Amino acid sequence: MELFSEENSAQVVAASFINTRNVRLRSLLTGLTQHLHAFIKETQLTEQEWAAAIDFLTRTGQRCDSVRQEFVLLSDVLGLSMLVETINHRTQGDSTESTVLGPFHMVESPPKALGDNIALDGKGEPCLVTGQVTGPDGEPLAGARIDVWQANAEGFYDVQQPDLQPERNLRGLFTADECGRFWFCTIVPRHYPIPVDGPVGQLLAATGRHPNRPAHVHFIVTAVGYRPVTTHLFVEDSPYLDSDAVFGVKSSLVRQFPVVDDTDRAAEVGLDNPFRTVDFTISLLREVDPAPSGTECSS
Amino acid sequence: MELFSEENSAQVVAASFINTRNVRLRSLLTGLTQHLHAFIKETQLTEQEWAAAIDFLTRTGQRCDSVRQEFVLLSDVLGLSMLVETINHRTQGDSTESTVLGPFHMVESPPKALGDNIALDGKGEPCLVTGQVTGPDGEPLAGARIDVWQANAEGFYDVQQPDLQPERNLRGLFTADECGRFWFCTIVPRHYPIPVDGPVGQLLAATGRHPNRPAHVHFIVTAVGYRPVTTHLFVEDSPYLDSDAVFGVKSSLVRQFPVVDDTDRAAEVGLDNPFRTVDFTISLLREVDPAPSGTECSS
Repeated sequence: MELFSEENSAQVVAASFINTRNVRLRSLLTGLTQHLHAFIKETQLTEQEWAAAIDFLTRTGQRCDSVRQEFVLLSDVLGLSMLVETINHRTQGDSTESTVLGPFHMVESPPKALGDNIALDGKGEPCLVTGQVTGPDGEPLAGARIDVWQANAEGFYDVQQPDLQPERNLRGLFTADECGRFWFCTIVPRHYPIPVDGPVGQLLAATGRHPNRPAHVHFIVTAVGYRPVTTHLFVEDSPYLDSDAVFGVKSSLVRQFPVVDDTDRAAEVGLDNPFRTVDFTISLLREVDPAPSGTECSS
Repeated sequence: MELFSEENSAQVVAASFINTRNVRLRSLLTGLTQHLHAFIKETQLTEQEWAAAIDFLTRTGQRCDSVRQEFVLLSDVLGLSMLVETINHRTQGDSTESTVLGPFHMVESPPKALGDNIALDGKGEPCLVTGQVTGPDGEPLAGARIDVWQANAEGFYDVQQPDLQPERNLRGLFTADECGRFWFCTIVPRHYPIPVDGPVGQLLAATGRHPNRPAHVHFIVTAVGYRPVTTHLFVEDSPYLDSDAVFGVKSSLVRQFPVVDDTDRAAEVGLDNPFRTVDFTISLLREVDPAPSGTECSS
């Protein structure tokens, strides 16, 4: 092996991976090495800065436990999670855009009947969600599965408030009807902060960034023969839509939640009057079609 | 803020750092963001690979404790530690090149008199180390301090074998004489592996790399008015000189350790005959001179 120098550092390290059996692993390590060495050279990183980075990464790893993943949080606030999600789930035509899964899909959503109310404690602004799942040509996808979960009106998921919310509050797994349609009752979720009591919170503070995510309902939609989509439905009048801490907002996913004042309709769906409504059509790509290709890479 | 897309991802995240008070921190985070986003796009990183990276980083952080720093080890085997060391301690003319500090300078070296033997248990091939500390014009640096530490003939530092080696074995802090000269007795160190029982060891195994460092003696040399140097003296007949697991070898730091068969000289220095010898002249830069500038950055 050629000896290491400032000039050839990345090449020497890349050459050390020559015996890697997994070709993809070798390619990933070579690319990572080139970028990290270029970063250090471009910034002329000091020894103190290097030591601070080592300390930050160590504390980030040690903040992880069975219910907290601080490295995912770091990936989120650097836009890395969203970028990986986006390049692995490109849209085509009018297909519904994806966004991050997030850390709160940790329990299975309970199966529900169309029209059920997933707000088990009834706290919050009542809301009727309607929608339809279709294929790329608008064909309705009968029997599509719609998995939804969301924060409550105070910005907390059930698993964050085990003593204050009923178990599996604001979670449901629905099956679309023969026309691909679905509907359920819930409450309007609230925006909320990601956890800030760890190294990632310190990073946000040091960079003058707020930790908030705009209000949203999570969806995972699947149908046999179609590509699943993991996405959010964002509430248009929520704060932080233009500065989501994890960069999850896509404008195609933002919807108005208009107020309906109609006692007959309220009685029909089982909600107090007035209530809010939103309609969310979800368009899936076919599994057999080739995955959409990316745009030119830009750094 | 502009909404996130595959095309503008790095710019959107960089823009989120606009309120960072520390200008240098903002510049570092911007550069890091650009490189990490470019890496993900160039490699079209999959969600499974992203999840494997999160898991690797988490385990690396959790492998760290008061006597083990797995992130430093990761930085070492990717050549990042050596690159930071090199760009922060550039040489000029004949000044002695630096190399990594390593993790074993964890205890203070005991002050010793010139000629003392630092091999407290006498196990190994006896060796006389001589040398001189000079400035850039060859001027001898009287009273320079020479801090040395090394592995034993089995490749272990004292702190790794608290029950098998005397405390502070193979460590010494010497003061050069009025001519800047120093000399001490020791044994020839052996090559050794870095720790492989953690995530970094798994990375080396997956990439077909051995974990060994060639045999070396550590030096930190300081003199009032001169820039200190942290470096190694490498043993020329050691294996792994051309494949150091942490990329620490610079050819200017490799020396022959010839055998001397001279009973009079052996008696004079207090070693068994025959013994090995090495001479190491260390040239420091003046503190007042500007730091050497780098070569053109190359990625």
